[in-house]
Amino acid sequence: MTEYTAFKVELTDNIAHVQINRPEKINAMNAAFWEEIVEIFQWIDDTEAVRAVVVSGAGKHFSSGIDLMMLASLAGQMGKEAGRNARLLRRTILRLQSSFTAVDKCRKPVLAAIQGYCIGGAIDLVSACDMRYCSADAQFSIKEIDMGMAADVGTLQRLPRIIGDGMMRELAYTGRMIDATEALRIGLVNRVYDDQAALLDGVFAIAREIAGKSPIAVAGTKEMISYMRDHRIDDGLQYIATWNAAMLQSEDLRVAVAAHMNKQKPTFAD
Amino acid sequence: MTEYTAFKVELTDNIAHVQINRPEKINAMNAAFWEEIVEIFQWIDDTEAVRAVVVSGAGKHFSSGIDLMMLASLAGQMGKEAGRNARLLRRTILRLQSSFTAVDKCRKPVLAAIQGYCIGGAIDLVSACDMRYCSADAQFSIKEIDMGMAADVGTLQRLPRIIGDGMMRELAYTGRMIDATEALRIGLVNRVYDDQAALLDGVFAIAREIAGKSPIAVAGTKEMISYMRDHRIDDGLQYIATWNAAMLQSEDLRVAVAAHMNKQKPTFAD
Amino acid sequence: MTEYTAFKVELTDNIAHVQINRPEKINAMNAAFWEEIVEIFQWIDDTEAVRAVVVSGAGKHFSSGIDLMMLASLAGQMGKEAGRNARLLRRTILRLQSSFTAVDKCRKPVLAAIQGYCIGGAIDLVSACDMRYCSADAQFSIKEIDMGMAADVGTLQRLPRIIGDGMMRELAYTGRMIDATEALRIGLVNRVYDDQAALLDGVFAIAREIAGKSPIAVAGTKEMISYMRDHRIDDGLQYIATWNAAMLQSEDLRVAVAAHMNKQKPTFAD
Amino acid sequence: MTEYTAFKVELTDNIAHVQINRPEKINAMNAAFWEEIVEIFQWIDDTEAVRAVVVSGAGKHFSSGIDLMMLASLAGQMGKEAGRNARLLRRTILRLQSSFTAVDKCRKPVLAAIQGYCIGGAIDLVSACDMRYCSADAQFSIKEIDMGMAADVGTLQRLPRIIGDGMMRELAYTGRMIDATEALRIGLVNRVYDDQAALLDGVFAIAREIAGKSPIAVAGTKEMISYMRDHRIDDGLQYIATWNAAMLQSEDLRVAVAAHMNKQKPTFAD
Amino acid sequence: MTEYTAFKVELTDNIAHVQINRPEKINAMNAAFWEEIVEIFQWIDDTEAVRAVVVSGAGKHFSSGIDLMMLASLAGQMGKEAGRNARLLRRTILRLQSSFTAVDKCRKPVLAAIQGYCIGGAIDLVSACDMRYCSADAQFSIKEIDMGMAADVGTLQRLPRIIGDGMMRELAYTGRMIDATEALRIGLVNRVYDDQAALLDGVFAIAREIAGKSPIAVAGTKEMISYMRDHRIDDGLQYIATWNAAMLQSEDLRVAVAAHMNKQKPTFAD
Amino acid sequence: MTEYTAFKVELTDNIAHVQINRPEKINAMNAAFWEEIVEIFQWIDDTEAVRAVVVSGAGKHFSSGIDLMMLASLAGQMGKEAGRNARLLRRTILRLQSSFTAVDKCRKPVLAAIQGYCIGGAIDLVSACDMRYCSADAQFSIKEIDMGMAADVGTLQRLPRIIGDGMMRELAYTGRMIDATEALRIGLVNRVYDDQAALLDGVFAIAREIAGKSPIAVAGTKEMISYMRDHRIDDGLQYIATWNAAMLQSEDLRVAVAAHMNKQKPTFAD
Repeated sequence: MTEYTAFKVELTDNIAHVQINRPEKINAMNAAFWEEIVEIFQWIDDTEAVRAVVVSGAGKHFSSGIDLMMLASLAGQMGKEAGRNARLLRRTILRLQSSFTAVDKCRKPVLAAIQGYCIGGAIDLVSACDMRYCSADAQFSIKEIDMGMAADVGTLQRLPRIIGDGMMRELAYTGRMIDATEALRIGLVNRVYDDQAALLDGVFAIAREIAGKSPIAVAGTKEMISYMRDHRIDDGLQYIATWNAAMLQSEDLRVAVAAHMNKQKPTFAD
Repeated sequence: MTEYTAFKVELTDNIAHVQINRPEKINAMNAAFWEEIVEIFQWIDDTEAVRAVVVSGAGKHFSSGIDLMMLASLAGQMGKEAGRNARLLRRTILRLQSSFTAVDKCRKPVLAAIQGYCIGGAIDLVSACDMRYCSADAQFSIKEIDMGMAADVGTLQRLPRIIGDGMMRELAYTGRMIDATEALRIGLVNRVYDDQAALLDGVFAIAREIAGKSPIAVAGTKEMISYMRDHRIDDGLQYIATWNAAMLQSEDLRVAVAAHMNKQKPTFAD
Repeated sequence: MTEYTAFKVELTDNIAHVQINRPEKINAMNAAFWEEIVEIFQWIDDTEAVRAVVVSGAGKHFSSGIDLMMLASLAGQMGKEAGRNARLLRRTILRLQSSFTAVDKCRKPVLAAIQGYCIGGAIDLVSACDMRYCSADAQFSIKEIDMGMAADVGTLQRLPRIIGDGMMRELAYTGRMIDATEALRIGLVNRVYDDQAALLDGVFAIAREIAGKSPIAVAGTKEMISYMRDHRIDDGLQYIATWNAAMLQSEDLRVAVAAHMNKQKPTFAD
Repeated sequence: MTEYTAFKVELTDNIAHVQINRPEKINAMNAAFWEEIVEIFQWIDDTEAVRAVVVSGAGKHFSSGIDLMMLASLAGQMGKEAGRNARLLRRTILRLQSSFTAVDKCRKPVLAAIQGYCIGGAIDLVSACDMRYCSADAQFSIKEIDMGMAADVGTLQRLPRIIGDGMMRELAYTGRMIDATEALRIGLVNRVYDDQAALLDGVFAIAREIAGKSPIAVAGTKEMISYMRDHRIDDGLQYIATWNAAMLQSEDLRVAVAAHMNKQKPTFAD
Repeated sequence: MTEYTAFKVELTDNIAHVQINRPEKINAMNAAFWEEIVEIFQWIDDTEAVRAVVVSGAGKHFSSGIDLMMLASLAGQMGKEAGRNARLLRRTILRLQSSFTAVDKCRKPVLAAIQGYCIGGAIDLVSACDMRYCSADAQFSIKEIDMGMAADVGTLQRLPRIIGDGMMRELAYTGRMIDATEALRIGLVNRVYDDQAALLDGVFAIAREIAGKSPIAVAGTKEMISYMRDHRIDDGLQYIATWNAAMLQSEDLRVAVAAHMNKQKPTFAD
Repeated sequence: MTEYTAFKVELTDNIAHVQINRPEKINAMNAAFWEEIVEIFQWIDDTEAVRAVVVSGAGKHFSSGIDLMMLASLAGQMGKEAGRNARLLRRTILRLQSSFTAVDKCRKPVLAAIQGYCIGGAIDLVSACDMRYCSADAQFSIKEIDMGMAADVGTLQRLPRIIGDGMMRELAYTGRMIDATEALRIGLVNRVYDDQAALLDGVFAIAREIAGKSPIAVAGTKEMISYMRDHRIDDGLQYIATWNAAMLQSEDLRVAVAAHMNKQKPTFAD
């Protein structure tokens, strides 16, 4: 396993655990973070032995978002020419976005396990995950508005599909902090656990459940749900029909049906 | 009224009751089911006397989904040539999809009344209905994942518009069974009734309410809501303006206003 | 401040209060209403001193919707030639729609404060606002179905993005009246206040919170969330990157960071 | 081979020849035409032995478009209620459209061979074909404008993708008759032949060429080109990748490569 | 008829002649131009007696594009704050765009008659017209690239639908001047006339032809072709079916058929 | 300058010359080709000194398309499990596509200079370039159909936007070879040069012309034209307005205007 400076990554029982590992900085997202996360998810995508992914944060908090040092460094690169500054800013934002798009486009389900602060860029990150779970002490805030800017690495693009439009706007305009209970009520998280230990136990249990399914079927299911965020129903129907034209010739269907008949748990190849 | 083998169909008080009628097979969807449902909804669409539709299942359960015999028979048609197998599979899936698209595109509102098991293909079916209601004993599962396949007759395409994206993924990846309470909380059903009798009473009451409205107005309303699942707001505004350019010349508007003035219940032609 | 016949408009502390002001007619939307609202929101859009907007209704009710006199007058304009009637109707509907599109496209957040009746056209109006809040006595109904017509000034287009698809259809097909509690549960409103006084206090507090943020950041945030109702995630990411290429060169970012460092409240230019 | 009243259909050397066969009526499209064409293309789609289709008209002209008797009959069905008339008209138009959509969606390439008049509905028909060829005496006119109506069975929807937008508008607004030379210049036809005999020879030669290719490859190619009329480039790339994931496992690829190596003409199964 | 400073407008025989009238400035587009054109097309849209529009330029040239004085004045409004400058620029561009969108969305066909220079903003203007015709001395250039900017009032958005993608890029990247012959070859104009007199004669003849058709049918045809620049074929088919549900109940259809039977020229109401 | 095995790359006068350099293999696209082209265009995108790109082929031919050795090697990777084969094939095709998407998304204009054979994959490549120019001896063929497959690295997706739909289908279904004259007529190339020397001279002259323009303006122009292949006109207008809100604050605008006033040739920074 490669060593990373901003993350700790482990693979156990077909589950990759991607842990943001700068607890002394409240897991703030520094330059290394934005680069390493792309490599990690590239590795996950290429490694068929990984069947599910858990993203968590080391220490008491999930993450406080982008490291302000990064913004300061970016400001230092600005010159006098507004057009070329704009060109630089645009390309920088696109590059940061592509870090979380790597999470979004990962072929395996990604589960976020959230405790403590989940703020600013951390909301962008968990919006790019498949599902979100938290402990009772979690706190969420779309903090960018208080930095004098519109959030630009995914929150405003992905979160409205997850929580209601009305509440989305309130949270984005005010930056108001919400707790675990409200997060559950508006659909931001799927479940609240008592504490961080219970959270990790619970999320890994769900991840194991998923890792036991046919990886061909899980990948197809993820592709289709992600596709439907952006496409028409008729396009979606046509796409799954074309997809399954190949995938239903897979062994996994036969294995699953046989196990079902024998009331056994099926075992699928990676 | 035509006789069907997989359904029992009745028309009373402008309401068509379409009942899956293979209780001894837990209303599993066999070959006849997939063909007859198209004919039934063609008839509903062509019959102006039908103003609302209730879909239910005979016996203790709504439906256990696609009949595994059908899948076995399909498997038997496979040859050695992967390309031509793919062609056959793709066309077969498209044909199955078109059975539930007939429900989705039906010009009259379709209400699903669900008790007991609602599993696999049954979720695809109720996702194509306008509204879903259940009794307290209902149980829902996106079972396809356990067959080693991605659901391909509509669940993954239509359900994300109905329940939240986060919970959608959990249910689709794990196939976890959920009960009536959770179904209500995530918006899968609009209401839970104590038992099957109360369920049918309640759903028929709503259907009667709808059947008493102007059929021109109801059809326009359905067309617009369905259209908005897939289209932009500006396209939707333009579409309803064009639609109502014709439909507001209808008598029903005059009838409704007159009844309103006289504080009477209006009566609309089919 | 211009005088209006259907509205009372005030600007205090960067907040425009737009009050429908025909309480003796339950704030029914007459011809003046549809014209004046366009002028008012044009003024709001052009006036950088306005940073947030509250829409409310004078008296015991928010609004009973379109004034039936207007419909009668429109009926009187109809001639014998169906094609030219259709042309007239279509253009009239498009013009009415554009009144609420002016609310929807307003660059500043619009908060609706709703008490008593919110019926028919009033639902179209609040659907075009950013957020909705109500008092405990509020009552909502998509009343158009009882006028023998499909709602055509925005409800059917915008509301499905706000509340669940299943409940949307039930309310639109039946015209059923729902109360504040149900409105909160389905996400139609963000919060319920005890009475009208508490409602206005609460909504103005949120509006003040928003008015204190960077107007550049708030406008960008609104643009992006509205954009995402209709566009793909990849388009949204590209759009915000292009937007922020200019906007991150703004002073507001520097002001916000400086205030953050000094733990002070930042002050932003209009 | 089924007998038809408006068509003569033959299958030779894997090519279906669909000939409009009412030369005494200038091949006007009567009620039988609109129904039979659906059945014919259903048969073509289901019959793997058909690998290419030629559509032509018997006699001196291709077709004069919709039979005016049909319009008269439709007019006779109109009642007094404008709303219900609109409902009837809308459904009728959708049904007529579906006749040519069957041509458009046919999985095999459809070549139109056009001589003499090609007017009104005939333009709708050939716009739904893959390619158009004509003899030197051909004459084309979007005649609907002279009937006081906007063309509604496909010309205005499909033709702009084929000829230039500027010329499209001139022809549609004026109904001006154009000849074979101009048709070639604006891309309406691919080639002009001296006379009707040369036209049929030429078109059948192209059809035979196509019928000799892998039917799996031809079907995929058609699906993709048709898809690109309406979809984004990135969606198209993703779609062909998914399609070929199955289809490149076909024997045809091996057969083609082997023939290529041996400099022989390959033979593909249906 | 209102008097304008940048235009001369006449209405004769149901044809509005909109002439840019600053020949001493090569018809450069000044502030008055951008405002008046909106009023003029609003009037055209509202005046049913106008059935076709001809846009031309007084003097030897069509137009040299935007008046550089306007750009200078805009530059003078720029302050020091980059974010607020961006806000001002964006709103200014959107307002300029809306001037030509008024031309594009005009319900009546707009024919451009072009002689001499047609440069920069003039290309944006004629791209928003339905058809373009020119005299042999016409010269076209997408001049914005030489001003150090990307064209932003419509050329880059509308012209690719009219001329080929490959040539579009060459002209936009190089600003190369093309003559009438090349303009005809690439589909930028529909026809080239010998000189300016022949040009106006020819264009007015086409406009008269169009003005003699049913205005209901022409408006529907334009709506559909414009719609198809941006929409899917299936959406287009559905839209025309809904449109014609109203419009085929028009008298014009009856008038047209009766005239056709009697081999007379029909006369349609405005 | 990095050394490549399949390409020779030079940078002179702000123009990158990317030459496929396997003349002894008719420039067939081998594994190195597909990898190196991504690196090359990444370097072009990151190097502001590159302002235009010319793609050509060494020797007598542009390129014969994909190297059949690559297909053979891919075939060798296939296992027995159809589902996992499909997964491998799909990912492989997506990776090949991304090589040409790097060309398509390059921020600088890419001009293809084509002589001799331009076949199969070579058509995919030139379809991803901005403009195409050829010598009189050029020959083009969409050869994939003769390999028993649908073209899957971009031809079917991008070419229909460039040449007419009717001719597109004929060429794709038949694989017919076309010469330079026909390529010019259908818009596949912008110009035909007498021989290869004249071709390179001509194309470099155009590239130099482009390299002399403001790189900010050229990049914006390319972004907008590419955007319009896939987006609506209103989205395009909004996008350029947002883009130019930043870019019109660039120095280049001032430089260009000053040069224009002084009738000098402007010089722009990279």
